Amino acid sequence: MPLSSVLLENAVDQLSTLPGIGRRTAMRMALDLLRRDGAAVHRFTEAVRRMRDEIQYCSTCCNISDRPVCEICSAPGRERGTICVVEDISAVIAIENTHRFKGLYHVLGGVISPMDGVGPEDLQIARLLERVAEGGVEEVILALSATLEGDTTSFFLNKRLGERGIRVSVIARGISVGGDLEHVDELTLGRSIMDRKPYEEAVRR
Amino acid sequence: MPLSSVLLENAVDQLSTLPGIGRRTAMRMALDLLRRDGAAVHRFTEAVRRMRDEIQYCSTCCNISDRPVCEICSAPGRERGTICVVEDISAVIAIENTHRFKGLYHVLGGVISPMDGVGPEDLQIARLLERVAEGGVEEVILALSATLEGDTTSFFLNKRLGERGIRVSVIARGISVGGDLEHVDELTLGRSIMDRKPYEEAVRR
Repeated sequence: MPLSSVLLENAVDQLSTLPGIGRRTAMRMALDLLRRDGAAVHRFTEAVRRMRDEIQYCSTCCNISDRPVCEICSAPGRERGTICVVEDISAVIAIENTHRFKGLYHVLGGVISPMDGVGPEDLQIARLLERVAEGGVEEVILALSATLEGDTTSFFLNKRLGERGIRVSVIARGISVGGDLEHVDELTLGRSIMDRKPYEEAVRR
Repeated sequence: MPLSSVLLENAVDQLSTLPGIGRRTAMRMALDLLRRDGAAVHRFTEAVRRMRDEIQYCSTCCNISDRPVCEICSAPGRERGTICVVEDISAVIAIENTHRFKGLYHVLGGVISPMDGVGPEDLQIARLLERVAEGGVEEVILALSATLEGDTTSFFLNKRLGERGIRVSVIARGISVGGDLEHVDELTLGRSIMDRKPYEEAVRR
């Protein structure tokens, strides 16, 4: 049955373009928005519109930032010789929350994905190579998703950075800390056996 | 860690007000919206804004409608003596999809819920009583959620409609058609035993 209102239909259509949202959930969202007063819905749409229209990116690491150079890139205490390459701001937040990394970041804005029409030129790879060319960078840590696309991107970056004599490393893959062995997939378990560490070294951290 | 952008922060805050959306999903939505071009995001925000600002309701049944009287209320073939009372448009769509109901609807706009500050006066109950007072209504079918709030609302409506000599019925509760008995909760199973039907009558439909 088509909806009795084109306005509602359009809103449901648009809400269901959000990642992971089907038409049923989009309908629930639309009805929820309809129950709010007009000002609340305007706050909602304006926040989304302003984010899209006014957002800025750090000129150094390409992370989302309200300043020309982001807080991390301009912090005096960070190790400037190490750059951690990530897909997006969520990875920056996740890594910052570990408190284990004191270097700088570089946000690619995605990974190479021919299926989605994303090539190296669509990502902030040129800017990364520029930063490396400016000198002072000793190590680049690749912290991308362990997917086909992430691995392709890591392969591509390793080749480009290796040509420039930069030390390139990849974050460790293995079983989760606190993880139950029973629920680990075979690929990860196999990898964790191949990449085993001497006991003394593993428990030291 | 606070986000590096107030614009992003505001958009994530607003997206996480949608029902069932936590901050992590809201972040994923915000990043997805950021990757779209400006026009696509404007289509999104405009669809939501216009729905909220311009939506209209049927003057008879209070369902969302782009016309003063909705398609169902103005259809000549519907049985005008039966009104099915529902919470919102999703219930209308669900019931229409069953093709088992040929009467009219009345959309309350929610259920009585003191916890959420929703009283009878916040719902389209006065309009329902008006419709009944206009005459020609023989039966009112209550098709509300089988929750505490839905039951409270049904109790309230039955009282008000009963006073006016209207036949009030409630949709059947029991095990799902095609449902596995093992997964039915005890309350529903108990109810389905109490409300059992003669075999001949049950298989006839």
